[in-house]
Amino acid sequence: MAKTDNSLMSTIVSLCKRRGFVFQASEIYGGIGNTYDYGPLGVELKRNVKEAWWSRVVTARADVVGLDSAIIQNPKVWEVSGHVGGFTDPMVDCKKCKGRFRADKLEDAKCPEKPSKRPGECAGELTEPRSFNLMFKTHIGPVEESGATAYLRPETAQGIFLNFKNVLESARIKPPFGIAQIGKSFRNEITPGNFVFRTREFEQAEMEFFVPPEENDKWYSYWRDARFSWYSELGIRPENLRLREHDADELAHYSTACADVEYLYPFGWGELEGIACRTDFDLKRHSEATGTDLLYFDPQTKEKYTPYVIEPAGGIDRMALTFLIDAYEEEQLEKDTRVVLRFHPEIAPITCAVFPLVKKDGMPEKAHEVETILRRARFSTFYDEKAAIGRRYRRQDEIGTPFCITIDGETLNSDVVTVRERDSMEQTTVPIAELRTFLDEAILNWSR
Amino acid sequence: MAKTDNSLMSTIVSLCKRRGFVFQASEIYGGIGNTYDYGPLGVELKRNVKEAWWSRVVTARADVVGLDSAIIQNPKVWEVSGHVGGFTDPMVDCKKCKGRFRADKLEDAKCPEKPSKRPGECAGELTEPRSFNLMFKTHIGPVEESGATAYLRPETAQGIFLNFKNVLESARIKPPFGIAQIGKSFRNEITPGNFVFRTREFEQAEMEFFVPPEENDKWYSYWRDARFSWYSELGIRPENLRLREHDADELAHYSTACADVEYLYPFGWGELEGIACRTDFDLKRHSEATGTDLLYFDPQTKEKYTPYVIEPAGGIDRMALTFLIDAYEEEQLEKDTRVVLRFHPEIAPITCAVFPLVKKDGMPEKAHEVETILRRARFSTFYDEKAAIGRRYRRQDEIGTPFCITIDGETLNSDVVTVRERDSMEQTTVPIAELRTFLDEAILNWSR
Repeated sequence: MAKTDNSLMSTIVSLCKRRGFVFQASEIYGGIGNTYDYGPLGVELKRNVKEAWWSRVVTARADVVGLDSAIIQNPKVWEVSGHVGGFTDPMVDCKKCKGRFRADKLEDAKCPEKPSKRPGECAGELTEPRSFNLMFKTHIGPVEESGATAYLRPETAQGIFLNFKNVLESARIKPPFGIAQIGKSFRNEITPGNFVFRTREFEQAEMEFFVPPEENDKWYSYWRDARFSWYSELGIRPENLRLREHDADELAHYSTACADVEYLYPFGWGELEGIACRTDFDLKRHSEATGTDLLYFDPQTKEKYTPYVIEPAGGIDRMALTFLIDAYEEEQLEKDTRVVLRFHPEIAPITCAVFPLVKKDGMPEKAHEVETILRRARFSTFYDEKAAIGRRYRRQDEIGTPFCITIDGETLNSDVVTVRERDSMEQTTVPIAELRTFLDEAILNWSR
Repeated sequence: MAKTDNSLMSTIVSLCKRRGFVFQASEIYGGIGNTYDYGPLGVELKRNVKEAWWSRVVTARADVVGLDSAIIQNPKVWEVSGHVGGFTDPMVDCKKCKGRFRADKLEDAKCPEKPSKRPGECAGELTEPRSFNLMFKTHIGPVEESGATAYLRPETAQGIFLNFKNVLESARIKPPFGIAQIGKSFRNEITPGNFVFRTREFEQAEMEFFVPPEENDKWYSYWRDARFSWYSELGIRPENLRLREHDADELAHYSTACADVEYLYPFGWGELEGIACRTDFDLKRHSEATGTDLLYFDPQTKEKYTPYVIEPAGGIDRMALTFLIDAYEEEQLEKDTRVVLRFHPEIAPITCAVFPLVKKDGMPEKAHEVETILRRARFSTFYDEKAAIGRRYRRQDEIGTPFCITIDGETLNSDVVTVRERDSMEQTTVPIAELRTFLDEAILNWSR
């Protein structure tokens, strides 16, 4: 199936609802804009994506530490960061129907109000564009009128800059080093869409890597390439990925370089992650605004400097969607077709399904025993005893479970099980005592 | 040190800042109310607490699945749940100084405005109490005046009820079964305080366990006891824990029973987690409001019914604080005193510290090799080569690292390391090849 096939998105959306990956939020109340909830499989998929990011970016490295800063920070933070003044979309109003639209999304100068809202397009005259801020506003404390306005953070990055000094003083670390964070951010987008690709509430994975200014270019290349590779290492097909360096006129005024990891979505190439040089812009702004020293003192050279910053920033929801889309395949077999999600085992919501061949002769009991062994070894498992074995395999293929383990007469006689691998559909007989090692190795050696 | 010692809280707060567990949010901007950010050690502590909850409540069980619903849901949800009308604090205004206070926290009827704000207490006359809603309000879309008011969720539970039908239809599960969720909730508290014990933005861990009505009492007892045990299994001292059943007049009008797991904080006994019977209240309300069938059809008995719900609900921040406080000890040794956090190894932010005995003779290189082996085996590690070995032990004791691994001359000769255990301070010689198994077993057999 060609990736530009428009029907693929609706197939994915439908699979997500039917199997419990993603549901429309507040669905029984008619939903709420482009907002989604993650179901039992979706939450495990997202957990795995987050863990795969954190384990590579934080846990496996001695030069990166984690952080978890609050969503609601002092409102002055967003004035200084430039978000109160500059984080805006240009909007126009229709003088006739009073509708409001994003100026840069209008095809022509007439009001595009759709027939579903009123009979025929309104075609009224539009105002000049005005700026609308994308930050969600709220109030702290019980006195709304007192002006204790606060904002929901539009990015996790500022929480990292705010704690630069605290981390430097407590973590016994020095440049080059990174501070990483995963957490919710909020943008009051006018035109969210494409399922979980662009939503108003989303989960970010960001890392600010602080370097001596003269090492900026080296570390930019390093993180750009490392983050690009992460996706193919986790099973995304290389032909669907590309790295796009921004032209000079695309860069933020303070940035020296930026690259996007792009993916070929069914709706075209789209940004999956950005790797940007933020220079010393943010630290300097916060230092000037607060009078706080946000410099690093190098005890070797006896010099003080403001580190430059390389920032890889991606969205967990968008990553999860990308893994889903890329994994999807309708495979033509000899007699029929199967739907299979070819997830990397590290990403798959369920690692092992456990089946008794039949619902009698002590096989369900034995299957539960095997399931317990696997759960204790921290494998995500699912027990299924309903329908013919072939039908059960297909159910697991459709949600990307890499291993199906069947308990049959042989198991009762000699404690061996049959392990069926999702992609090759090959079956191997494995002693229960060796099951954990067998699965560990199969996961380690998995390739697409 | 007695747990009711008031100075213990300030000792903990100071340790948290100095070692990078918890920082004041927006500190360089003067903070923002009682809001906190988690530093490099705090974020790992929280990740471990969340993982310990999820692994017991979801992963290890066949009858509980996970969910991750959006923070901003359709505002009608909160009307129907009763939060728009009833989730309020009574507030009074001072007619003289215009200050606003929580009526149930006033000692007498005079305005308690403190001398720090104005010379002498104001002592003005107070208005009758009025209700102020605890939900944070915001607006969706670019048109604030259009009335697209939305709320930040005050609990994660409603997101679960909204998806009851979706999960039932997609997850092939039937009562008794649970849906669990960890995520941020927001309450516009007038009087947050006691560090991260009560904050306006906090992370909840909630599970709704749906049961046939006649099994309500059985499952209530089951979950009350299971959740109580979880804390002592993870190292909390039993003498600091108690279970308190609510009296009939404390119960919500729809609830049949409720118990709090309480902990003896330095400021007194406080609620750590609540286990409540929510009956069929929420499902019935949402069903009536939306006209959606939220019943379970039992194919065996051919009966349809609305399940009853048992809800264990706790706060991750409060759990993390409790593990911190309970782990803290100033231990009198022969010659001096050491500060030690006696975390369960599953909770400790760092599992193994790795030290070269001296900074020469190839020991740092060998230590980095050992560290890499441990990181690959997914142990959280920290490398330290600075200061005398005894000083390095103490640094790790203070942040609760259960194992310190030293590389010395023997390591270079015969590939053995010295493992020093935090609590007993005993040292064991272990071959590098057996290190992983040694640590796995020590963690499995750990007890306080």
